[in-house]
Amino acid sequence: MHRPVEMVEVGARDGLQNEPELVPTETKIALIEQMMDTGARRIEVASFVHPKWVPQMADAEAVVAGLPKRDDVTYVGLVLNKRGLLRALDSRDSGGGIDEVGCVAVASDGFGEKNQGMGWEASIDVVRDICRLAHAEDMAVQATISVAFGDPFDGAVPMARVVDMAKRIAEENPKELALGDTIGVAVPAQVTELFSRLREAIPHIPLRAHFHNTRNTGIANVWAAYQAGVSIIDASLGGLGGCPFAPKATGNVATEDVVYMLAQSGVDSGLDLDRLIAAARWFEGKIGKPLPSMLARAGGFPTGQ
Amino acid sequence: MHRPVEMVEVGARDGLQNEPELVPTETKIALIEQMMDTGARRIEVASFVHPKWVPQMADAEAVVAGLPKRDDVTYVGLVLNKRGLLRALDSRDSGGGIDEVGCVAVASDGFGEKNQGMGWEASIDVVRDICRLAHAEDMAVQATISVAFGDPFDGAVPMARVVDMAKRIAEENPKELALGDTIGVAVPAQVTELFSRLREAIPHIPLRAHFHNTRNTGIANVWAAYQAGVSIIDASLGGLGGCPFAPKATGNVATEDVVYMLAQSGVDSGLDLDRLIAAARWFEGKIGKPLPSMLARAGGFPTGQ
Repeated sequence: MHRPVEMVEVGARDGLQNEPELVPTETKIALIEQMMDTGARRIEVASFVHPKWVPQMADAEAVVAGLPKRDDVTYVGLVLNKRGLLRALDSRDSGGGIDEVGCVAVASDGFGEKNQGMGWEASIDVVRDICRLAHAEDMAVQATISVAFGDPFDGAVPMARVVDMAKRIAEENPKELALGDTIGVAVPAQVTELFSRLREAIPHIPLRAHFHNTRNTGIANVWAAYQAGVSIIDASLGGLGGCPFAPKATGNVATEDVVYMLAQSGVDSGLDLDRLIAAARWFEGKIGKPLPSMLARAGGFPTGQ
Repeated sequence: MHRPVEMVEVGARDGLQNEPELVPTETKIALIEQMMDTGARRIEVASFVHPKWVPQMADAEAVVAGLPKRDDVTYVGLVLNKRGLLRALDSRDSGGGIDEVGCVAVASDGFGEKNQGMGWEASIDVVRDICRLAHAEDMAVQATISVAFGDPFDGAVPMARVVDMAKRIAEENPKELALGDTIGVAVPAQVTELFSRLREAIPHIPLRAHFHNTRNTGIANVWAAYQAGVSIIDASLGGLGGCPFAPKATGNVATEDVVYMLAQSGVDSGLDLDRLIAAARWFEGKIGKPLPSMLARAGGFPTGQ
């Protein structure tokens, strides 16, 4: 009836990267395996960044080495530069390792300088370089434009700049381009307009959406993005995460909250809501605190008596 | 640019009615006065129900008597039967008292029997009677159809029934008709369809929307309702509330969360976001616990440096 959505599970990377506690390698692997049991088939598993900057991801190679080898699951590794890309490439062995890398341009200088040590223009070149190198090594690559809806230090981000960045990145043919609302400021009217402009500007590149629920607009933004033609959605189990460089940002939209909204709207995501709720409750026990997930509290639609 | 929204502040009624603690009369009045300072001009101030059922509202008359007399503010009282209507009428004196009553039909028998002691068909007659009596006494009256998107005991509620109920209630010309997602199960696709059907069925009656955020879909539903032509939105400061007869239901959508989403979309609500955030934090102190509001945590859109 409706076109399906492909979910990208980012809890083990974007989620855990931004939790203050260090989570043991085996717990990360158990989380990723749990997500496969819920139906997840595309999973961000690690970020290949310097452990000095992101100690939560220091065990990236160990996590990847410990994952089950499965042809039907795409393991995604985040890389911010060539060094990270080389680590992701090195993880590959017979039938295992990283299947796809994600790279990130930043739409605003304030956040860019603090998070990646560069402004928006320089970040375009970094992403274009990673795309070229990845393609040369036969590694799938996708790109995200972060803080595309607002910057914690600079405030508003011009839409025309985001569209221009997207066009220049699209020249390197990433498998898809995402807009990231890294600090959770976007509203659906803005999401509709920006993704609609992107569809016109780069009609040949599939679009992905990455929302945080900091100001309670995350689910509304997912629906607006879907209606604007986006069919690939990032989310993290339980709403794990935040952002160390974005003051007071809370986690990604919770996978189970997104899946409830989609399922009740007749949109298939390939994920099982009851298993997601069970997984979120299980991981709350592992991490020793409640997560922002609302479906884990309330449960699904009442089935009646 | 965009048509404005009229907010109905329901924190002092739907919010406090469903908090376990009894809040002193003077705190209720202070809350209502704070909301006027944020710009609220239509405020649910009390429910005229039997104190045996809702002890939180036992001081309804005292609250109303203590309110400032203001020509520019509409004080709304909820009434579930003729006895409640008579109490609301009695509250009127020279320039003071209740300006408008709200009455409630219930879209499903399971919730209806437990909450109001009657099924959906009987509740239509009650609402029609209240409308007639109120009009005869020159009292403004509006109506809500509760659990319109799902019932905690019966599950799904047929859309055709809700539309039929709306038509029968509309014959008595209430000043507006609301759909209530009393237990927070609705999703935007459903909101779009049901309100669109209502606009066709009763084009002469303004529509109002009442959402709870139990499953994280509240803000998405507000936006869907607005896009379907709804211009009157219920919300409670801080997301105060819940529902004693709806297991695990959390509060109404938080006023400040709704206002952030609307303001960033270029839609005027007449309310001041900074004052709302301050009021929510003040009331958290009064009630001694954090409220679900996300804007009170995160603050508004970053203004840059």
